[in-house]
Amino acid sequence: MSELNFRINKNKFYNGLTAAARAISSNSPMPALTGVLMDVKEDEIHLIGSDADISIEVTLNNAMDQDLNLSVVTPGSIVIDSRYLLDIVKKIDSDTISIEIIDGTLTRFSGTNAEYKINGYRPEDYPVIDFTEPENKFTISSETLSQIISQTIFAASGKETRPVLTGLNIKTEENNVICTATDSYRLAKKTVAVQAPAFATTVPARSMNEVKNIFNDKDVEVAVSPKKIQFRSGAYVLQSTLLEGNYPETDRLIPSEFSRTLIINRFALIQAVDRTSFIKTDNMPIIRMQINSADDIVISNKNQEIGESRESLKAVSYDGEPLDISFAGNYILDAAKALSTENIRICFTGEMKPFILRNDNEDDSILQLVLPVRTYN
Amino acid sequence: MSELNFRINKNKFYNGLTAAARAISSNSPMPALTGVLMDVKEDEIHLIGSDADISIEVTLNNAMDQDLNLSVVTPGSIVIDSRYLLDIVKKIDSDTISIEIIDGTLTRFSGTNAEYKINGYRPEDYPVIDFTEPENKFTISSETLSQIISQTIFAASGKETRPVLTGLNIKTEENNVICTATDSYRLAKKTVAVQAPAFATTVPARSMNEVKNIFNDKDVEVAVSPKKIQFRSGAYVLQSTLLEGNYPETDRLIPSEFSRTLIINRFALIQAVDRTSFIKTDNMPIIRMQINSADDIVISNKNQEIGESRESLKAVSYDGEPLDISFAGNYILDAAKALSTENIRICFTGEMKPFILRNDNEDDSILQLVLPVRTYN
Repeated sequence: MSELNFRINKNKFYNGLTAAARAISSNSPMPALTGVLMDVKEDEIHLIGSDADISIEVTLNNAMDQDLNLSVVTPGSIVIDSRYLLDIVKKIDSDTISIEIIDGTLTRFSGTNAEYKINGYRPEDYPVIDFTEPENKFTISSETLSQIISQTIFAASGKETRPVLTGLNIKTEENNVICTATDSYRLAKKTVAVQAPAFATTVPARSMNEVKNIFNDKDVEVAVSPKKIQFRSGAYVLQSTLLEGNYPETDRLIPSEFSRTLIINRFALIQAVDRTSFIKTDNMPIIRMQINSADDIVISNKNQEIGESRESLKAVSYDGEPLDISFAGNYILDAAKALSTENIRICFTGEMKPFILRNDNEDDSILQLVLPVRTYN
Repeated sequence: MSELNFRINKNKFYNGLTAAARAISSNSPMPALTGVLMDVKEDEIHLIGSDADISIEVTLNNAMDQDLNLSVVTPGSIVIDSRYLLDIVKKIDSDTISIEIIDGTLTRFSGTNAEYKINGYRPEDYPVIDFTEPENKFTISSETLSQIISQTIFAASGKETRPVLTGLNIKTEENNVICTATDSYRLAKKTVAVQAPAFATTVPARSMNEVKNIFNDKDVEVAVSPKKIQFRSGAYVLQSTLLEGNYPETDRLIPSEFSRTLIINRFALIQAVDRTSFIKTDNMPIIRMQINSADDIVISNKNQEIGESRESLKAVSYDGEPLDISFAGNYILDAAKALSTENIRICFTGEMKPFILRNDNEDDSILQLVLPVRTYN
């Protein structure tokens, strides 16, 4: 008997539904997964959305939120298509919405004058999602978590040819959590001092992006098992499957000694590279940087069909032999935008060797690495 | 000899280019039409963009705009791909940009430190566009013109099966200009008191939308010939080809006598229809309106698979026998949004007869007509 009858504040309910629905994919192969599972207990309601990879559970109760005005007449559960559900709850003509199963899966939503009867899915047709928290866990601030994600995730691969590279590798090392993303042409690595148990895992980039969207005010508990990673804070639990396969030993790729160091204004570099990025070769802006001295840097870009650009730039300082190097402009833009200081430090080894970009201050937590591109200018 | 060498204020030039480029279609079959034709005379510059149907000419000179700082060393003309041109001019690192042909069609754009050499197209490869103004003309305020377009254009057909219905029909009658758009299921008609010579023509909806985008401050001169329509104001000329074929005699479709009149709050109607529009049958929200009296109106929507909605609504007044009528919800939304008064007047003849919506005041300039839909509820 899946009876169900409850009332709840419209706006609070809508916010919860929006969060749960973030996990839902519109083209799910399993019909029930296009819906939000509403599981209503005596004194709280659980809203679950999932695309089988990411699952989000939102728990709402009057103890956590006084304005929720949850009043449960009969507990029960039902799955309702998230598009209809969000549309109804957003637009209904009252502050409180009443929801009731009236026949099988036919569910009534009532406002003041507006009333909807929507065919749902049986909760039995929704996959069982285990939200048990793994034991291996640590706590991190949502601000730090968000920073990790925005400073690294763009470097993950968009191609499915090597699935493990489409994720963010997260591992512990001494008292640090180290997060790495790479598509094998560039790499972003963020190290944060957090006490955490030993683990190493790779999480799909899409999951990490949703973590950033959902957790934005309090501390977040992160729990890891060999099967899943779970993020938990306040009313929200987000868990994600993991990417299988060995993550490459990226540390070996990062040079530790450099023959040339350029310190340059970050914004001036971004502007110069951005300006010339409309000239694309094989759909990529291939930018050549010729460094003779701090006062003599030329950024150029050439394409047989379109034409060419050329711009001179001055740096704060340059230490080393002259250098003539080419790279994908969008990689440099991503890397420079993920840094934060007025000037940045770019360390080179040679024309065809990976180079790294860092903040020009004591903060060595974030490292951006880019591989040069061979050109035939 | 197509030499060319001039300097111009970057922002003013960018604004002119943006306007001219509005006519350009990214998938033009004629390569030169992806570009903007820059035709530089002794003391002014003409920027032309076209997709062969819509053509826009922007004329810039120091007399019209003191901040333009146009300085022509050598007149000439060149066609440059609009995407590259807009990108360069928007981002270049100086307030003034210098443009010069350096070899054939290779054109140099110089800022302070940034310099681009872009391959253009020869002006000879650009079609000759005749911007001569037709003699048959009248003047209208840009505000009225913009209102005409936004109150009617949505009713034009999106389907190419009857091309003439994809446009806005504009004709004169006594001292009025009458503009009509219809997809044969609904119709919008706007009448404005303007002194104009006798003509009747149909202009593509896309052209009218660009007219709305480009002309937004002064009076606009509209000139018509059997071949084209031209809009002219300040620095801008926009001209469009016309749609061929006889426009239907729409006046015969508009009933003049009605058996029932509903006066209802416009916003309440919009909200009620919008709320239920997520329930779609054959991709269209088919809404049933059952009117018994001003105090007893029911709006409902039913779909076998999704479910149903039902909402009661009160009107300001209702005069006539009860009515049970169904219509496409989006048509009513478009029509009601194009009206402007707090309450609107809806006049019905019968269940399967077209009905009209008007402002509930003295302003009879705008008429919205909708055909009911047959349902099998």
